[in-house]
Amino acid sequence: MELKTQIHAEDGKQELFITREFDLPLNLLFRAYIEPEIVAQWMGTKVIKLENKQHGSWQFETTDPMGNKHGFHGTIHEFSINQRITRTFEMTNANFGPQLEFLEFEQLTLQTSKLTMHLVYRSVEIRDQLLQLPFKQGINMAHNRLQEIVKNL
Amino acid sequence: MELKTQIHAEDGKQELFITREFDLPLNLLFRAYIEPEIVAQWMGTKVIKLENKQHGSWQFETTDPMGNKHGFHGTIHEFSINQRITRTFEMTNANFGPQLEFLEFEQLTLQTSKLTMHLVYRSVEIRDQLLQLPFKQGINMAHNRLQEIVKNL
Repeated sequence: MELKTQIHAEDGKQELFITREFDLPLNLLFRAYIEPEIVAQWMGTKVIKLENKQHGSWQFETTDPMGNKHGFHGTIHEFSINQRITRTFEMTNANFGPQLEFLEFEQLTLQTSKLTMHLVYRSVEIRDQLLQLPFKQGINMAHNRLQEIVKNL
Repeated sequence: MELKTQIHAEDGKQELFITREFDLPLNLLFRAYIEPEIVAQWMGTKVIKLENKQHGSWQFETTDPMGNKHGFHGTIHEFSINQRITRTFEMTNANFGPQLEFLEFEQLTLQTSKLTMHLVYRSVEIRDQLLQLPFKQGINMAHNRLQEIVKNL
């Protein structure tokens, strides 16, 4: 099955790009990133904090099938409704450190929209380690859930 | 005159490293980065906000010799006393966008300490544009002021 979420990672760079087109109006796609109840569903996470504003911050926690808890957190540098979220992102209890994420939301048609994520890492090595994880499959599954959940809102 | 603050920028990378050794005990060097009155003096800036904590944020404003105001702001992702500040940094009214900054503070001797800044940019192009500015001289002058002001505290 074709993966709808595409990852572009050029060799030797400390960044990568993720793109996905959704069969969702722009405002619904954006809501999937800012409304705690919707985030919780498609990410399968507990939303502990999600302050959707410039200089806000966020914190999520997931529990894996073994019962282990995994934390994620960061700050929101810039927030522009239906357009852009610039944030830091870090997995706690991992050794990857924080990364800087630029999320851009754009309308394609009245019923379709596109998400472009530009992730910038502390080093090429950290980015490459993350790409060794089942990252591509994971984000595809999550985005597929997003599409299914949000279209029925 | 030798520049005491060193900048290391490898060709083709979207990051750079800044290092400086100070004739200051570690805790005084760290205070120069967190106490608004001290920051204001050595940076020559107005400190509008400086929340020294994880998920805090900061905002500075300078007035240049022509009377123009320049804003700077960002979030604080991680804050560890006398050790580490990880923050975002953006000049408002510039087109560089935000960068991710890792500041590491370390004791060398009881009377000397070292600052290492690792700055990660959105792109190689943006980093190279910033390096075209009188960046090296500016940060050296600022760090020289820091040294003079803080040693007399």
